[in-house]
Amino acid sequence: MFARIDHIGVAVEDLDAAIALYERDLGLALVHRETVDSQGVEAVLLDVGSNHVELLSPLGADTPVGKFLARNGPGLHHVAYQTTDVEQTLAALKAAGARLIDEQPRVGIRGSRVAFLHPAWSGGVLTEIVQPAKEH
Amino acid sequence: MFARIDHIGVAVEDLDAAIALYERDLGLALVHRETVDSQGVEAVLLDVGSNHVELLSPLGADTPVGKFLARNGPGLHHVAYQTTDVEQTLAALKAAGARLIDEQPRVGIRGSRVAFLHPAWSGGVLTEIVQPAKEH
Repeated sequence: MFARIDHIGVAVEDLDAAIALYERDLGLALVHRETVDSQGVEAVLLDVGSNHVELLSPLGADTPVGKFLARNGPGLHHVAYQTTDVEQTLAALKAAGARLIDEQPRVGIRGSRVAFLHPAWSGGVLTEIVQPAKEH
Repeated sequence: MFARIDHIGVAVEDLDAAIALYERDLGLALVHRETVDSQGVEAVLLDVGSNHVELLSPLGADTPVGKFLARNGPGLHHVAYQTTDVEQTLAALKAAGARLIDEQPRVGIRGSRVAFLHPAWSGGVLTEIVQPAKEH
């Protein structure tokens, strides 16, 4: 069903400080930066081999990541698994009884198509499935 | 510095239920199960391509994962990055000013050698570096 861990999502309070940590201290390569209005974040992708770290800075307090930060502070926010067919995977998960946040895929960072599963179904882990755009 | 995300660690309250979720519903292959006394957990590894999900069930309430569960409930616990030389990586991180939980590598699951960085240094993310045993 899944080819790899596509990325981990990390909620951050200070995007520049987080970039310095991951780029300078942990040696990851920054490859993309984008404001994803639909998710209420400014996001940065860094490469770790074929996987990524996605840093998430909320555009306001009243966004999902803003609320996460107020409740938990900065830290691990979600994990995303990579699929080649997000519709098929979503249908299979629905058939397995998964509780979905997104009944239909929507556009995510860097032209990907994504859907989130509800953490109440997936053991407290906010879980994303992602089909990257063809060029990634 | 890192070849890939080695695994994400997930704290679970019910190991059998979590295995059913990841194996049956999410389609991951269970590849290893081990009691890691030094970390106070019964742990299970499932493959996602070259990456893994590590399910962590505490051996008691007074263990790090037991305390994590009491404080946060089940969910994402840590992320581990893979290196080919854990000593060298640990030395580089120390030189970069990293706050370490483990000053020296110790034996982790499946014969790996691991060290944890303090989440207060790494943006609230409990971060592990891991050098797998040669056969993995």
